[in-house]
Amino acid sequence: MTATTTSTLANPTDDEVAALDAWFRAANYLTVAQIYLKSDTLLERPLSADDIKPRLLGHWGTGPGQAFVYAHVSRLIRHTGQRAIYFSGPGHGGPTLVAAGWLEGTYSEVYPDVTRDAEGITRLCRQFSSPGGIPSHVSVTTPGSIHEGGELGYALIHAFGSVFDNPDLLSICVVGDGEAETGPLEGSWKGISFVNPERDGAVLPILHLNGAKIAGPTVLARKDPAEVRALFTGHGYDVLEIEGDDLPGMHHRFAAVLAEAYEKIHAIQTAARDGSWDGAMPKWPMIVMRTPKGWTGPEEVDGVRVTGTWRAHQVPLSGVRENPEHLAILESWMKSYGPDELFPGGVPSELIDANNPEGDLRMSANPMANGGVLTEELTIRPFRDYAVEVINPAGERLESTRLLGAMMADLYRDNPHNFRLYCPDETNSNRLGAVFDVSDRAFMERVTPDDVKLSRDGRVMEVLSEHNCHGWLEAYNLTGRHGLFATYESFAMVSASMTVQHAKWLEEANHLPWRAKIPSLNILLTSTTWRNDHNGFSHQGPGLINVVLNMRSAVSRVYLPPDANCLLSVADHCFRSKSYVNLIVIDKQPHLQYLTIDEAAVHCEKGAGIWDWAGNEEGSGKEPDIVMACAGDVPTAETIAAAQLLKEWVPDLTVRVVNVVDLMTLPRQKDHPHGMSEAEFSALFTDDVDVLFAFHGYHGAIHKLVHGRPRADRFHVRGFIEQGTTTTPFDMTVLNETSRYQLVADVLNNTRATPAGAQELREHCQQMLDRHHSYIREHLEDMPEVKDWVLNPAT
Amino acid sequence: MTATTTSTLANPTDDEVAALDAWFRAANYLTVAQIYLKSDTLLERPLSADDIKPRLLGHWGTGPGQAFVYAHVSRLIRHTGQRAIYFSGPGHGGPTLVAAGWLEGTYSEVYPDVTRDAEGITRLCRQFSSPGGIPSHVSVTTPGSIHEGGELGYALIHAFGSVFDNPDLLSICVVGDGEAETGPLEGSWKGISFVNPERDGAVLPILHLNGAKIAGPTVLARKDPAEVRALFTGHGYDVLEIEGDDLPGMHHRFAAVLAEAYEKIHAIQTAARDGSWDGAMPKWPMIVMRTPKGWTGPEEVDGVRVTGTWRAHQVPLSGVRENPEHLAILESWMKSYGPDELFPGGVPSELIDANNPEGDLRMSANPMANGGVLTEELTIRPFRDYAVEVINPAGERLESTRLLGAMMADLYRDNPHNFRLYCPDETNSNRLGAVFDVSDRAFMERVTPDDVKLSRDGRVMEVLSEHNCHGWLEAYNLTGRHGLFATYESFAMVSASMTVQHAKWLEEANHLPWRAKIPSLNILLTSTTWRNDHNGFSHQGPGLINVVLNMRSAVSRVYLPPDANCLLSVADHCFRSKSYVNLIVIDKQPHLQYLTIDEAAVHCEKGAGIWDWAGNEEGSGKEPDIVMACAGDVPTAETIAAAQLLKEWVPDLTVRVVNVVDLMTLPRQKDHPHGMSEAEFSALFTDDVDVLFAFHGYHGAIHKLVHGRPRADRFHVRGFIEQGTTTTPFDMTVLNETSRYQLVADVLNNTRATPAGAQELREHCQQMLDRHHSYIREHLEDMPEVKDWVLNPAT
Repeated sequence: MTATTTSTLANPTDDEVAALDAWFRAANYLTVAQIYLKSDTLLERPLSADDIKPRLLGHWGTGPGQAFVYAHVSRLIRHTGQRAIYFSGPGHGGPTLVAAGWLEGTYSEVYPDVTRDAEGITRLCRQFSSPGGIPSHVSVTTPGSIHEGGELGYALIHAFGSVFDNPDLLSICVVGDGEAETGPLEGSWKGISFVNPERDGAVLPILHLNGAKIAGPTVLARKDPAEVRALFTGHGYDVLEIEGDDLPGMHHRFAAVLAEAYEKIHAIQTAARDGSWDGAMPKWPMIVMRTPKGWTGPEEVDGVRVTGTWRAHQVPLSGVRENPEHLAILESWMKSYGPDELFPGGVPSELIDANNPEGDLRMSANPMANGGVLTEELTIRPFRDYAVEVINPAGERLESTRLLGAMMADLYRDNPHNFRLYCPDETNSNRLGAVFDVSDRAFMERVTPDDVKLSRDGRVMEVLSEHNCHGWLEAYNLTGRHGLFATYESFAMVSASMTVQHAKWLEEANHLPWRAKIPSLNILLTSTTWRNDHNGFSHQGPGLINVVLNMRSAVSRVYLPPDANCLLSVADHCFRSKSYVNLIVIDKQPHLQYLTIDEAAVHCEKGAGIWDWAGNEEGSGKEPDIVMACAGDVPTAETIAAAQLLKEWVPDLTVRVVNVVDLMTLPRQKDHPHGMSEAEFSALFTDDVDVLFAFHGYHGAIHKLVHGRPRADRFHVRGFIEQGTTTTPFDMTVLNETSRYQLVADVLNNTRATPAGAQELREHCQQMLDRHHSYIREHLEDMPEVKDWVLNPAT
Repeated sequence: MTATTTSTLANPTDDEVAALDAWFRAANYLTVAQIYLKSDTLLERPLSADDIKPRLLGHWGTGPGQAFVYAHVSRLIRHTGQRAIYFSGPGHGGPTLVAAGWLEGTYSEVYPDVTRDAEGITRLCRQFSSPGGIPSHVSVTTPGSIHEGGELGYALIHAFGSVFDNPDLLSICVVGDGEAETGPLEGSWKGISFVNPERDGAVLPILHLNGAKIAGPTVLARKDPAEVRALFTGHGYDVLEIEGDDLPGMHHRFAAVLAEAYEKIHAIQTAARDGSWDGAMPKWPMIVMRTPKGWTGPEEVDGVRVTGTWRAHQVPLSGVRENPEHLAILESWMKSYGPDELFPGGVPSELIDANNPEGDLRMSANPMANGGVLTEELTIRPFRDYAVEVINPAGERLESTRLLGAMMADLYRDNPHNFRLYCPDETNSNRLGAVFDVSDRAFMERVTPDDVKLSRDGRVMEVLSEHNCHGWLEAYNLTGRHGLFATYESFAMVSASMTVQHAKWLEEANHLPWRAKIPSLNILLTSTTWRNDHNGFSHQGPGLINVVLNMRSAVSRVYLPPDANCLLSVADHCFRSKSYVNLIVIDKQPHLQYLTIDEAAVHCEKGAGIWDWAGNEEGSGKEPDIVMACAGDVPTAETIAAAQLLKEWVPDLTVRVVNVVDLMTLPRQKDHPHGMSEAEFSALFTDDVDVLFAFHGYHGAIHKLVHGRPRADRFHVRGFIEQGTTTTPFDMTVLNETSRYQLVADVLNNTRATPAGAQELREHCQQMLDRHHSYIREHLEDMPEVKDWVLNPAT
């Protein structure tokens, strides 16, 4: 960028200021109109109470600041051709971003019913926050947005996720000072420590200190400005500041600040891309912007100050239908923007258009914010290439996730610009370290000789923050790219709310034809509940499964591959899928392997199936006496072992073993698209034989899933009953009543007749449990060499 | 504090340094021993592979830094008599804190089996991270701890929560640089903006930059020290720094830094308490401590640097059983601490004792960290004092939570030092604003004339962070005080993981006789799913109920009071209860009121009951044709309305209405202590009549709860099926198939015979739904005055 360009950017002409100001006023006008009016939306006659909506909803306070930023970024785009996404952290300012899209023409292109004329303005107003209309927050329905403005905390995380491997993107992120108080937001400033200016785009955070949240001041707004400056300098930013409410002065000053920020970004990127970069961590700019809350709104109402205070947060004139004085204030407030001049004949004026970028450069029309349209399919080698040879089922143990690591190493190889793994510092711990053969961990801070697989060129994302990992991937997905978030199972609950909110986004997007499908959010939960025996109770929690099960069936997918080959098949499917939340749960420790890759492919395709070799039904010619179902690696191993005991000790008992990989095959077809037909369900579980279901997670999940199936009461679930500590893996199954011996006892208690050998087997199992308990009890005295026993108690 | 005291503190004598160092070495020795040894734990003979544990677990890296801090704080306590709690953010350093408690003698007092002698040391080693022993993290079993060190992020939040209204407490909080990357931790530095030095204690954060986490460096450790300084200066702290690994030099320098920090804290508190404070926000000290990870451990292993790198994180010598060279390194490492001198005859030396404070002043014995022993019962006025008069059930609407606000105002009045409300800036929004009649919002930053109910003297805690609110209350509870966390229902998922972890803590504490019961964690979810019609889909999510249902029955409690009087009764119970997680779900908008206060008291006591007035069973002398059950205010209103329609249109149908307040009455007694007996359950739900259950949350919760009850399949649940948007309240029920008209249709579909009038009623309901849908469809064209219709569609 030449000095001339910078100077031009920094010094808007009078015409440009006029255009900026017209755009700013127009957006503010439309914001107020959306909140208040249902008719006479251009104030063509004196405003009457009848023109006011029956219910006043929406947030005014944040709007004008955001309109101001949007106008100026648009001007920047016109000068530079920069592609940009606008992230509205204070997403409650929904009407402002809707107004922006409408002023740019995009809104009418996307929603032809909302025309770019007087009728369209009325429609814009009537649909806002109304039944059958649009939400009050920036949301899925807002063109140009990939960030839901409801639950606060993730704006900057999403902004960073959007720019990874997106070198041409500038993500403008307005952070409200309310949101700035949340933990996830405070933890997201460090995103710059992972942005490489050579291959990634840039984030320009604009901290909007308008002073207040819903009912009081914010911490940052009341701090000494020197402290605020120090804080963000400490985070590594080059802090630019602007403050005021004078117009047109603010236009001149903000244009200069924005030009300075852009010039700094441009300089960093140019150096990184032309080879003149010394490799030091760049000082990225950020802007601290202080404008009054509700800027340009009514200064005072009923003798009380409104603008600049928390009173401007939502609807500053609440009595406007009943109180003529309020109505008059509203009218003069709206007139102050000059609607006649802004919307001649109801259409945005030429001055407004003069500030709008062209075509795809309009932020509301940026295809990067509708990432599905840009998505390139992943290059995935045949998953059979990574298979493990399985000669006898349950013959050998293997760390299943290692194979996924090998698969992902090739994904990194074959998709060098659109695939990333996100993981809180656990890639190696989770046995996914093969990716480091292809790519280092990303890190822009100082690197030392003792560091391993760590560099600024790395693209494996490790940061000790589930929030950052989760949200970075969300935004990477939303901008059309692929990835996986791998985490310890129990700590997936840290970002459970993000899982919920993203699922809601995907489901809503399904209803909008203009939103292209995006790569699925793939979440791998490993280091699971059953094998955090060494870490203890705080690390034992399968709760995220239940969270995902509650999401709509159009997006929720839960897989529990029992072994490595099944994991490969499931992962292959998930990486190719679109717009789902795919939860994959499998442990990283050595576990028994069951299926050849061909068997695994068939099994996973169906989602559930009978494992003949594990039962003794074949040739019996009758219905089984018991169905032993299982889902998850550890419960599967215990079920197989229990079935083996039953086969050996009580051969007259006919046992069927059913393994479930895809939990969503269990519900009825009307409840989930993966649901088995009634015939398929009966073929696996019969219509009335008791089913003992050994499950990875909490019981309730299975009860919920089989609800409405024939005699659902016959499903006896064993699963995690919230018992745990630092102990042996086998003891975890005993504590949770899911060990082979307890499963055998359950079977014997649930079959109608008492088969020959049952009593002896019962006694054997009790002996084995006693032996186990005495081992645990005496452990401190004795501490024998128990490794084999722990891993593989004799059946 | 006199200058002499400060100078004494800052300049330890040679004897003191010897004692500090002995204590430091002893704690390090015991840390290593716990990780590696099962016998010869005092190295009385040459170490052999047989002495090594079969499974090496634990984290060494963080240990020595924490031992160092602990030793110095103990010395500070000896000089000043200060009461202190030590928060171990890097809680993986469990063995170090266990060693500390043992060195102080507390461990043997609490666990007499672990004697303070050679045998005790062996027992300490053998129990560590072993089956039947103790967890590897600082946990419930660790004397002196109120912070579980498993899930990272909450150390500083807990530290702040502990000092509110605890003027004599100093909470030392060691923050690991790994944990420092999490969102919740980054969001918790702002705690000082809410600490009033006059009435609260002090937190001294010690950021321990040892450089690495499990597999790589941390962001803060690799930043320029000037940036780190700026960051915390920006957060408002007076930043003190110390760096090094030289001994005894570090003892002298740290003593000086700690003395300086303490002197600053003392000066702030003295000024605030003697009236000389100008009211300005104090500059609280914090310490940035840079010591190598695994300090004092093996510098190199197999030619690779270990100390100071991520390799020192867990078990730095993993091959010690197989590799004689590793074994030799271990032995010489352990010998380097001088076990003979430290533990003559197996007992801690006099030098070690010389550094230990006396009695309750030992941090491991501080009763504040076993808060139940200090808990004063809340003064609660009779909840009937706040009752609303209910003349006819379903006769009037009221904002139910307002009554709770009045109750809490009196709790603030009557318990000025041990009750607080924690709420993300929504106290007023949640209709709890009556508390502001008694106390302002707490805020230490600058206050302006436009602020309302905001001052440094305020004790209502508002910060826009669910993490801070939740964790502050947890620690307030753990130190023996009472409170309530009130939040928007959907955003309770933000801190769901904290709910899980706290429940786990409470449950484990139940098993430890020495841990006194503490006040329950009371969570009020308001602004609920059904009445976030104005905020839209992101604000509609009842997921926390399911999370709490998965916790152990000994701690999990979920209440859905249908009206204000029931809320009062439930709240009264919850405020008096101990060591539960009480989830109370009720909306803040105007809702129908049903029960007089006397009826409510009886109803809530039982937890569920038949509402005769709502059905038409009385005098019928037969079993009902249908049981209509409901839980939650909105589903209750729809159920009552549906039953009314049925009574009017199909009088031959016998309808029973059952309302459930306490969800935990539904499971079997063996599954939950609140579970109804079989007889009670049958008396409400019969043994085989179909039950249509209108539920506040996701279906699965009820299916889970009634599992195992007679013919559980007959429970047909209507609840939130993840459908929502910005719409009308009534439309929310229609979208989720829970409206009165849909409930009526469900009843008619589920009764065996077709009673007279059924067809007409069916048609009426369909008409009403059509009318509703056409209203929604035509809304944008029409926008009628629909307020009454929306709130109260004609039945």
